[in-house]
Amino acid sequence: MGEKGISKAVIKRLPRYYRYLGELKDSGVERISSGELSKRMQVTASQIRQDLNNFGGFGQQGYGYNVNFLYEEIGKILGLDKRHNMIIIGAGNLGQALANYGNFESRGFITKAMFDQKKELRGTTVRGIPVYDISQLESYLKENDIQIAAMAIPKAGAVQVAQTLVSCGIKAIWNFAHTDLNLPKDVMVENVHLSESLMRLSYKINSCKLK
Amino acid sequence: MGEKGISKAVIKRLPRYYRYLGELKDSGVERISSGELSKRMQVTASQIRQDLNNFGGFGQQGYGYNVNFLYEEIGKILGLDKRHNMIIIGAGNLGQALANYGNFESRGFITKAMFDQKKELRGTTVRGIPVYDISQLESYLKENDIQIAAMAIPKAGAVQVAQTLVSCGIKAIWNFAHTDLNLPKDVMVENVHLSESLMRLSYKINSCKLK
Repeated sequence: MGEKGISKAVIKRLPRYYRYLGELKDSGVERISSGELSKRMQVTASQIRQDLNNFGGFGQQGYGYNVNFLYEEIGKILGLDKRHNMIIIGAGNLGQALANYGNFESRGFITKAMFDQKKELRGTTVRGIPVYDISQLESYLKENDIQIAAMAIPKAGAVQVAQTLVSCGIKAIWNFAHTDLNLPKDVMVENVHLSESLMRLSYKINSCKLK
Repeated sequence: MGEKGISKAVIKRLPRYYRYLGELKDSGVERISSGELSKRMQVTASQIRQDLNNFGGFGQQGYGYNVNFLYEEIGKILGLDKRHNMIIIGAGNLGQALANYGNFESRGFITKAMFDQKKELRGTTVRGIPVYDISQLESYLKENDIQIAAMAIPKAGAVQVAQTLVSCGIKAIWNFAHTDLNLPKDVMVENVHLSESLMRLSYKINSCKLK
């Protein structure tokens, strides 16, 4: 694999390529040129060629990209050819929204269990996924093979929960709590800070008005 | 304002500065050096100085930054000193999660109404916020002063809803639907593509294992 030293910016764009290629594949398109892909994705053709060259250049001059092959290859690079078992900490609205996304499952992300501190949620299910009491988290992780933990909980208890997850061997955290977790370097964290996203929108509105 | 030509990367970091400064303020800290802020935020002190110099350099050599002043100034840059009225399209789990975030309100983002196509949701409320039928969207927007629309709906109807929003004068969309909206350039869009975020996490796990 020629993936060493790929910039974060390229990696950030890969899921978007994957999405567009998936849509092309679903609509029966077999080949696409960087020019056509450029029009659809509103990215320059030269950026597309540069980005995809990072992975060994799947395109051929005058022929274009083989959509299915490229879709599969990018899928492999993203690890989507593997199954990842996931748990969700927090069974409130956001946790339930995550549990209800059926298409995570079709990409290999299987939610096995949810955990919450609210006693009234214990024993309930979301789309068939059981909700356990947070006190059962450690024993559950010891007995089950889980790779990813999504944290859909408020900031207050988040750092402590993250430490528990890490002490139980979790190496990948999808963090929706609005705080930085400061975990060991071998733990992968992907943050989704919704209020920061809303502030960026507010910045755009505000800076647009100033012009 | 010296904000012309500020890079996207700096703007992306501003909400994080705002969060840390808010926490410092809440814990009674009045001044902080770029060195101390650097330790807390795990960003180099020189990056902090560079970033904050974009806004006129609020720091003083040997004195540090005035936390409250910097917090307020960054807040203004982000437009958080203004009130933004918001609606949420989609009153499912995700829409409800957004409606339930009380701290959006404390930053000036006031959710006034929600819209859904499910008849059984019509007439319900979420934290006091009324849910209307999606058919009422256009008339609602004509009669009310709304600046931001959050779209917490699936991909399928998203492009059409976005066009309706834009035709009713909405200039800022917070988009959770997993598709690009391709709107006129004067419409600000902030995308939150959850499945792409999950794929980036999967990439990190996968590329880590390959090493």
